[in-house]
Amino acid sequence: MGMVGGGVDAFIGAIHRIAANMDGLIELKCGALSIHKDHAITSGKVLFLPEDRTYLTFEEMIENESKMPADERIDFITIVTPNFAHYAPAIMALENGFNVVIEKPMTFTIDEARSLQKKVEETGLTLCLTHTYSGYPMVKQARAMMKEGALGKIRKIYVEYCQGWLSKLSEREGNAQAAWRTDPKKSGKAGAMGDIGTHAAHLAEYITGLKITQLCADLNIVVEGRHLDDDGQVLLKFDNGASGVLIATQVAAGEENNLKIRIYGEKGGVEWVQQEPNTLIVKWLEKPAEILRAGNNYQNILSPFATKNCRTPGGHPEGYLEAFGNIYHNFAQTLLAKMDGKTPTPEMLDFPSVEDGVRGMAFIDNVVASGNSTEKWTAFKI
Amino acid sequence: MGMVGGGVDAFIGAIHRIAANMDGLIELKCGALSIHKDHAITSGKVLFLPEDRTYLTFEEMIENESKMPADERIDFITIVTPNFAHYAPAIMALENGFNVVIEKPMTFTIDEARSLQKKVEETGLTLCLTHTYSGYPMVKQARAMMKEGALGKIRKIYVEYCQGWLSKLSEREGNAQAAWRTDPKKSGKAGAMGDIGTHAAHLAEYITGLKITQLCADLNIVVEGRHLDDDGQVLLKFDNGASGVLIATQVAAGEENNLKIRIYGEKGGVEWVQQEPNTLIVKWLEKPAEILRAGNNYQNILSPFATKNCRTPGGHPEGYLEAFGNIYHNFAQTLLAKMDGKTPTPEMLDFPSVEDGVRGMAFIDNVVASGNSTEKWTAFKI
Amino acid sequence: MGMVGGGVDAFIGAIHRIAANMDGLIELKCGALSIHKDHAITSGKVLFLPEDRTYLTFEEMIENESKMPADERIDFITIVTPNFAHYAPAIMALENGFNVVIEKPMTFTIDEARSLQKKVEETGLTLCLTHTYSGYPMVKQARAMMKEGALGKIRKIYVEYCQGWLSKLSEREGNAQAAWRTDPKKSGKAGAMGDIGTHAAHLAEYITGLKITQLCADLNIVVEGRHLDDDGQVLLKFDNGASGVLIATQVAAGEENNLKIRIYGEKGGVEWVQQEPNTLIVKWLEKPAEILRAGNNYQNILSPFATKNCRTPGGHPEGYLEAFGNIYHNFAQTLLAKMDGKTPTPEMLDFPSVEDGVRGMAFIDNVVASGNSTEKWTAFKI
Amino acid sequence: MGMVGGGVDAFIGAIHRIAANMDGLIELKCGALSIHKDHAITSGKVLFLPEDRTYLTFEEMIENESKMPADERIDFITIVTPNFAHYAPAIMALENGFNVVIEKPMTFTIDEARSLQKKVEETGLTLCLTHTYSGYPMVKQARAMMKEGALGKIRKIYVEYCQGWLSKLSEREGNAQAAWRTDPKKSGKAGAMGDIGTHAAHLAEYITGLKITQLCADLNIVVEGRHLDDDGQVLLKFDNGASGVLIATQVAAGEENNLKIRIYGEKGGVEWVQQEPNTLIVKWLEKPAEILRAGNNYQNILSPFATKNCRTPGGHPEGYLEAFGNIYHNFAQTLLAKMDGKTPTPEMLDFPSVEDGVRGMAFIDNVVASGNSTEKWTAFKI
Repeated sequence: MGMVGGGVDAFIGAIHRIAANMDGLIELKCGALSIHKDHAITSGKVLFLPEDRTYLTFEEMIENESKMPADERIDFITIVTPNFAHYAPAIMALENGFNVVIEKPMTFTIDEARSLQKKVEETGLTLCLTHTYSGYPMVKQARAMMKEGALGKIRKIYVEYCQGWLSKLSEREGNAQAAWRTDPKKSGKAGAMGDIGTHAAHLAEYITGLKITQLCADLNIVVEGRHLDDDGQVLLKFDNGASGVLIATQVAAGEENNLKIRIYGEKGGVEWVQQEPNTLIVKWLEKPAEILRAGNNYQNILSPFATKNCRTPGGHPEGYLEAFGNIYHNFAQTLLAKMDGKTPTPEMLDFPSVEDGVRGMAFIDNVVASGNSTEKWTAFKI
Repeated sequence: MGMVGGGVDAFIGAIHRIAANMDGLIELKCGALSIHKDHAITSGKVLFLPEDRTYLTFEEMIENESKMPADERIDFITIVTPNFAHYAPAIMALENGFNVVIEKPMTFTIDEARSLQKKVEETGLTLCLTHTYSGYPMVKQARAMMKEGALGKIRKIYVEYCQGWLSKLSEREGNAQAAWRTDPKKSGKAGAMGDIGTHAAHLAEYITGLKITQLCADLNIVVEGRHLDDDGQVLLKFDNGASGVLIATQVAAGEENNLKIRIYGEKGGVEWVQQEPNTLIVKWLEKPAEILRAGNNYQNILSPFATKNCRTPGGHPEGYLEAFGNIYHNFAQTLLAKMDGKTPTPEMLDFPSVEDGVRGMAFIDNVVASGNSTEKWTAFKI
Repeated sequence: MGMVGGGVDAFIGAIHRIAANMDGLIELKCGALSIHKDHAITSGKVLFLPEDRTYLTFEEMIENESKMPADERIDFITIVTPNFAHYAPAIMALENGFNVVIEKPMTFTIDEARSLQKKVEETGLTLCLTHTYSGYPMVKQARAMMKEGALGKIRKIYVEYCQGWLSKLSEREGNAQAAWRTDPKKSGKAGAMGDIGTHAAHLAEYITGLKITQLCADLNIVVEGRHLDDDGQVLLKFDNGASGVLIATQVAAGEENNLKIRIYGEKGGVEWVQQEPNTLIVKWLEKPAEILRAGNNYQNILSPFATKNCRTPGGHPEGYLEAFGNIYHNFAQTLLAKMDGKTPTPEMLDFPSVEDGVRGMAFIDNVVASGNSTEKWTAFKI
Repeated sequence: MGMVGGGVDAFIGAIHRIAANMDGLIELKCGALSIHKDHAITSGKVLFLPEDRTYLTFEEMIENESKMPADERIDFITIVTPNFAHYAPAIMALENGFNVVIEKPMTFTIDEARSLQKKVEETGLTLCLTHTYSGYPMVKQARAMMKEGALGKIRKIYVEYCQGWLSKLSEREGNAQAAWRTDPKKSGKAGAMGDIGTHAAHLAEYITGLKITQLCADLNIVVEGRHLDDDGQVLLKFDNGASGVLIATQVAAGEENNLKIRIYGEKGGVEWVQQEPNTLIVKWLEKPAEILRAGNNYQNILSPFATKNCRTPGGHPEGYLEAFGNIYHNFAQTLLAKMDGKTPTPEMLDFPSVEDGVRGMAFIDNVVASGNSTEKWTAFKI
């Protein structure tokens, strides 16, 4: 693995390293860790990178690495820069034969996303989008239950992602995370909807297997002086006729990272809360609710998709880093299978793809369009 | 107290009797308990009513009672019939000098609601609307905190009321509760939005002191064969600029009576869940959340509005019947004060009024109008 | 009903009145509400008692009432005085043909308890002991599950009752509740163990149907200057070989009224927490845990003992007062059946009896003896 | 790092590798991974170990590694064998200049433990005992609060560790974990008390800074045919006069890994539950309880000991592996400091030590002695 961005002190870079590293399948071999030369070099040292693979630009990294012998050079690059700086390294990596891991939202514009998708199709390489929350075992359990129709036809989907960290104008108080995320030039068309709304939309579609077909968005700039939405609520219609609500806000003062989803079908519902992720509540019409817990060896209850993404037995809580690790783990297994000339299994392929990335960028476009429209419903175009 | 409707076996009639009876201030003295003669008479016996005050129609009851000496006749009537049968006994009661307690939604149409409001104003009598959920102590605590600005300016209001009991076409399977509630001739313009959406809207306005000014509704008939909405989600705008979401559904299979509200201001948020009503979570920006619990003698934390509506010390859970009892208790204290020629205190007047009833009927009208509109926003007209 | 003790401002007297009154089966007709004449008279007025049935002593009350015609006089007396003043009115009431409701612990000494038991047996009258917590529907559900062996043989019983209200020397700061409860002359041999330990012991035996056979107690006076235990922990052995722990403390600062019980058998366990009483968690070996909720119409899951003790459907929380009301309700139905010459059903007889009262007093004796012993195990003598 | 035991498929070996690996400070360089030659070799391959550092015995490993140049050889060995096979590699490692990480309980007998302690003192090397649960940030927060006296004098300590996985005679059904843990020849004097009771005892002493001085144990073999305690409850006395209860059971059917601790002082209490480890509930006398959550930037609330042991911001749950990683992280930082000739800071030294290991072995001895005694109290000897 080579990393673009993610110098020491960058939040998400460190997360990616721990996650990639978790199962002993992936090693950080090189990086273009910062656009600031000194920081790039320092970061390389702290991370025990050899000097000659501590690059100053991603172009340099991709060029050099592509010239190295196959058994020495990296197999993929990981891009953890702000949104506006995703596309250039990604497309160059693909063009030079490297697989790609990339932060969400996948690109700055939907055109860039489509371009990546085309390149992935042309090259047969693999792109992995880190919608972390789909990496949780009990999310996968919910998805497996939907697939087998455990709840009957799905009727309602409520997904909400409430944070409070942008309740003040923190971007003007030295918060670097806040600064680029609230800057239209770095973040893109949307603020909260791009940053966390895309996670929520992906989670809803990932679990249910349904697609959003129409939406009606109310996007707001709550904190005065901000330039992108920091809050919004969206009515949703899905392709099977189900309806629902998506909430994404970063001004819910006192909330941490409260992503929650509830899905109801004819026979019952499921409820999953990211902050207590090892539990999936399953509610049943006319029967007691059940508490499904990750890592247990219940008789024929937990899907292999859930159990394969656990490292510990029931009662040993796994969290965000493990979910992130699952994304990398499955991606790595896919690469290994492909290197061995094998077809990756569905379990290996269980990570967000370039198609999800395109859908995420379309979500941003559509939700912003709806937010600006006086019409109630906006068709989800892609 | 005289009761219209509420023969034995009627759910809400029994609830009203327990609630009214709870604090020893109110006694059931007479009733027109059923439109079916035999049932009316049987019900009277079971409830220990004297035969001569077991009436067969509300007209008979009001006429007879109004002829009785002041110290013998009832002080108010309670109307627990289906919606379409609220107005006639209510207006007749007011015209004959009786105060009124009435189930929500207050009437069948908004014109009836306005007519009741006018009559209340003319007569100076008191009308109490049983939006039970506003009777909970920790709801009152939340309201008191809003009033004193504890959270700063309110920005977000999420209120949801999820039930699952109409997940099937129960109205055709002998469920009497379901039958009238899903019948436009008995229930009115709206189904779920009238039955539980009005509770949710009232709760949001009661706690925050804000008023809904615009809404954007998606109303659905999820269960085929039904004639009124059994599900809906509504985007909201409030008069201070806050926005939010109201969810009301009766097809969330596996849910019981899951009313929940979250409100966020500049400094923090509150969260209250009806099914665990003795707890109010208060979340703070950059400080740990607090768990406020009913009945405690914290130093200067709980509002008198909260503590006066508790009967037991902390840790002795109170529930739905006690909340209902609080509505009756405060109403009774208001009547007693007025009888004594005194001005009722704000604590006494802390029960939903005819104005809330008019607003509830307007909510139904506006939400149905919005549901039928292709415009995103519908102004809340009253 | 006639009440001994419970003048206005007394906590438990008011609770008894609400509970007794709840279902319209019982009416307060007379009282000897206070040993202070003025307070007795004032209390009678506030409670709308007729002057001639507002008595100044329990002796006067019992004498007078027993001379009244059968259809006018009370059917039972309720004794809500401090422990030391339970026996005299109870025995006199029984001797004069009145049934009795009495607060726990039943008496001041075990000899008094045995004497009451003998008198109940002689007279055929009914004595009801208000171990309130056994009145909760989900406690009854747990008991029903034990009876039918749902968990297999019971192995472990953990019951704990943690309060914090005696964390300071409140008895010297004007807290009347604290004053008599910590006074050996009024409370008896034990403090916390008598006040709340007896509740915990009763709950464990009530649910499991097992009997404590041995115990090993560590009783403590934590707050200096106090004269009775305010804290203790007890190892338990039961008659089927199960073992467990009983905790009763009133110095767990920050706790309200945290009674909790967990019981494990070969196949699974149950968990019930008084402060959220409408939920019973059932945990299963190798299967997901289930959340049983009061008032639901699950198919064949809830016992009639649970459903008959609910007044509202699922999701309308019932609490402490309703549990208390269930004790009175079942007691009243037992009296009604006996008056009608019928044999009360097991559902009617589902309230704590004089036998439970004797066992409670034996618990106090045994736990204090064990607390004073250097031997590990003390046999439970009765 | 070199590993003794922990061949692939061994539960705890894999955990140690993930934990050690988590922060990029530690690399697995060699191992004597199994006493079975083939398994040792296979495991080495799977874990990408070089062939010449895939050893067949720990003796071979220690000998070889000690001959390697200082910058190539390992700095410490990790021992993850069953209890009876802890001492030999540990003492040999220390004698050869290697630091040691070792699973709990530290040894098979207390004499072995004392011997290790002596050797550590002689050599100045570092031994780290993996009482994982002390690695959680909110456990460290609780400890910091005790240290600063936030709760006043500590009065009550309730610690319980309930598992259900030994509810059946799984050791005879091919469960290898169960097999050695229930075998006195491999596990030692105690079963559940050694396996999880030692964790509970360590947690209580770690958080409070108090020492157990007396105990009264009831140890049971619940499942017939077993040879060591699978269940027990212990009354505790601490050196400041506080008392409490320790529960350790592996037959609580339906429980996963339910370690919970509650501690009460004069002013309030704390509650921490391992299965939801990012939350610390702090209850206050006469003030609302607070919910402290890991990773937040509250103003002056969280101790550096808590925040330094977090990798992610609030709302990104960390779990068992991260807690384990913290043990290794702090141990590694201690080694690095010592290598640099610096004195490790208290934050670096925040991992369980050889002294804790001796205390754990003494706990086993004392609790078994008490279990066999008819005296109530057994002094805690060490």
